Amino acid sequence: MIFKVPRGTQDILPSETWKWQQAEKIINEVCDIYRYKEIRTPIFEQTELFQRLVGETTDVVQKEMYTFTDKGDRSMTLRPEGTAAVVRSFVENKMFGYPDQPVKLFYTGPMFRYERQQAGRYRQFVQFGAEAIGSADPAIDAEVIALALDVYKRVGLTKLKLVINSLGDTECRIAHREALIAHFNPHIGEFCSDCQSRLEKNPLRILDCKVDKGNPLIASAPSLADYLNETSAQYFADVKGYLDDAGISYEVDANLVRGLDYYNHTAFEIMSTSEGFGAITTLCGGGRYNGLAEEIGGPSAPGIGFAMSIERLLLAMAAEGKSFEAEPVLDVYIVTLGETARRPGFKLLGALREAGIRSDMDYMDRKMKAQMKSADRLNARTVVLIGEDEVAEGVALLKNMADGAQVKVPVAELVQKLKETLIG
Amino acid sequence: MIFKVPRGTQDILPSETWKWQQAEKIINEVCDIYRYKEIRTPIFEQTELFQRLVGETTDVVQKEMYTFTDKGDRSMTLRPEGTAAVVRSFVENKMFGYPDQPVKLFYTGPMFRYERQQAGRYRQFVQFGAEAIGSADPAIDAEVIALALDVYKRVGLTKLKLVINSLGDTECRIAHREALIAHFNPHIGEFCSDCQSRLEKNPLRILDCKVDKGNPLIASAPSLADYLNETSAQYFADVKGYLDDAGISYEVDANLVRGLDYYNHTAFEIMSTSEGFGAITTLCGGGRYNGLAEEIGGPSAPGIGFAMSIERLLLAMAAEGKSFEAEPVLDVYIVTLGETARRPGFKLLGALREAGIRSDMDYMDRKMKAQMKSADRLNARTVVLIGEDEVAEGVALLKNMADGAQVKVPVAELVQKLKETLIG
Repeated sequence: MIFKVPRGTQDILPSETWKWQQAEKIINEVCDIYRYKEIRTPIFEQTELFQRLVGETTDVVQKEMYTFTDKGDRSMTLRPEGTAAVVRSFVENKMFGYPDQPVKLFYTGPMFRYERQQAGRYRQFVQFGAEAIGSADPAIDAEVIALALDVYKRVGLTKLKLVINSLGDTECRIAHREALIAHFNPHIGEFCSDCQSRLEKNPLRILDCKVDKGNPLIASAPSLADYLNETSAQYFADVKGYLDDAGISYEVDANLVRGLDYYNHTAFEIMSTSEGFGAITTLCGGGRYNGLAEEIGGPSAPGIGFAMSIERLLLAMAAEGKSFEAEPVLDVYIVTLGETARRPGFKLLGALREAGIRSDMDYMDRKMKAQMKSADRLNARTVVLIGEDEVAEGVALLKNMADGAQVKVPVAELVQKLKETLIG
Repeated sequence: MIFKVPRGTQDILPSETWKWQQAEKIINEVCDIYRYKEIRTPIFEQTELFQRLVGETTDVVQKEMYTFTDKGDRSMTLRPEGTAAVVRSFVENKMFGYPDQPVKLFYTGPMFRYERQQAGRYRQFVQFGAEAIGSADPAIDAEVIALALDVYKRVGLTKLKLVINSLGDTECRIAHREALIAHFNPHIGEFCSDCQSRLEKNPLRILDCKVDKGNPLIASAPSLADYLNETSAQYFADVKGYLDDAGISYEVDANLVRGLDYYNHTAFEIMSTSEGFGAITTLCGGGRYNGLAEEIGGPSAPGIGFAMSIERLLLAMAAEGKSFEAEPVLDVYIVTLGETARRPGFKLLGALREAGIRSDMDYMDRKMKAQMKSADRLNARTVVLIGEDEVAEGVALLKNMADGAQVKVPVAELVQKLKETLIG
């Protein structure tokens, strides 16, 4: 019987977790500076929440959700994205009543989409996301974009491209929708069956269909840019103005349509322009979602946010040859010789750890030579040697592994001595 | 349409997440000192893994698992505990071949059990766990216990009780099992139907049945302690010896049987003895699980580990009146007056954040007075005031909120000046 990690998921092994911890540490620091506070919602939510907010006709909801019935006969879904649950929590916990608006939140955690397997895509993946809910100020759109870029900057990425677009408000979207239906309707027979059913329900989704993406009618489809009303155009101009002020460069791409239904006005993506990064260059995507809180019975609370994959952040770092600071090495390895030295060695180990010194010893009943090899392999800064003679004398030999220097130290003074030399 | 957090789960709100971050930070620090490395396994695993390792006849497997069929028609289960997946990963990734044994691992993350709702119990809860796999040295049992206790110590808990027991090896367990069957068999009709089916399959589970716990036959059942063979008794004596050396006090409780099937030899629990902590006083539980790796096709790799609930760690801290260091406050709140000051204010905000200064401004188009109120409410250490005159002059007013002192500073010098006063 051989058990394997579930298809499409991965174990993050001890040799890799340091990177994840460092990425999360930097994320927490940046969010602290920007005053976004962490929120943690459950791994699963009522299925209907995602159907309602992400959109019935999106690929995510139609094809990619991990949905199950719990023992209470309720339909639950492992969260495919983070925004729906954050907005649910915002409404349920009446955060719209907090004295300081907008409410600025972030989350980091696993998301789940049952996608076709391909390199760099996992069915369980980790997203960091930030959301500012309760303000329709174009400056906050720029702040949210700056926050995402700042995370990338602090991990050392330089080869980045920001692409923005405006999806307009409801009025523009209705006008655009009519134009799309008129455009596709005469030729809809050439499209896949999904697109045929999308035509009336949500023609915008035809534009990001994975099956029909080569059809020239998609390239020639009416652009939302031509349907922006004055309010929407002004809002977009203001966002661009704040980005200019912040010294953030961007490209406008009128074809940028995100794959979830809830976006309006500002939409953006951040891509890696690093060579050899592979086919999927999008690191981060986000946008404005005015109306989302109302959609689930809350008051008006215009919001904007983004989500970025930690997997891809690490891939982009690798592509640019960037790395985190080195993982701390072992301070002390205790080598014991003979049965009588074992328990004094274990006792010393406890005392060193209590003093905050990274330390370890042998638990495999190995000979002194093998213990010394471990100390070498683990890059120990110091070895403490205890044999029967040292136990009798109440001392230990302290060996500096950098220069090989060896001194005899009374056991009672050892912790203090090591604290001084190792921590300083 | 009102959406709520799924029954039995919770949102951890922004006012609470600081505590969780601090608890996890301390956990990471302690594991670094003890040289346990983080591993992250997926949220779900093949259902059979838990059936096989946690045990078919346990309550966890029989009643409490979130099991579903994925789109590839495979039965998957949200992990109800952490050890099975860690051992699965140890075997799958051939960690038994790592040059340094035992392999010392830790994890922190959500677990899922569909339990009856009660105070302090959640269906999604967070566990920190540590595992040392590959050594049968009794000293490592003591190390693992010391690690758990050290985490509690570093968050300030003092009212703790460690309870240990030995469950013996397979030989003792078979003898004890026979004795249990002989003890319960004549009266099995008095027990619940679950216990009746447990009698032949796994009579040990009768001892922790929630329905029959009041039955006097449970108290009078033969104790495992009377069935320990010499090897097991010696092993237990050695573990106690190492605990004594480490200055760790404990009670031996012959009735301590953990609710999962995989334990043998050492079993332990750490309880809170704080008054007013509530009915559930167990903070942490663990034990040895020799044979678990073989059970899923791996080589012999004796292991020991524990899991502790972060929810209960925080509850125990509250019960003892302990808290983490205070959350960092806002360094600078930028107050702008008039339309012309807005964009220079936003630009300054970006410069402050780039310098690592925690800063914020208004995104609700509010009057100066309301902005000042926000600065107060957020405990801002400094307010930077910019009006039309200041923009024209190229300056800003810098107000120290502790003493009310106000100085005029050229905008070009502001970041440097604030870095000096705030960070030092």
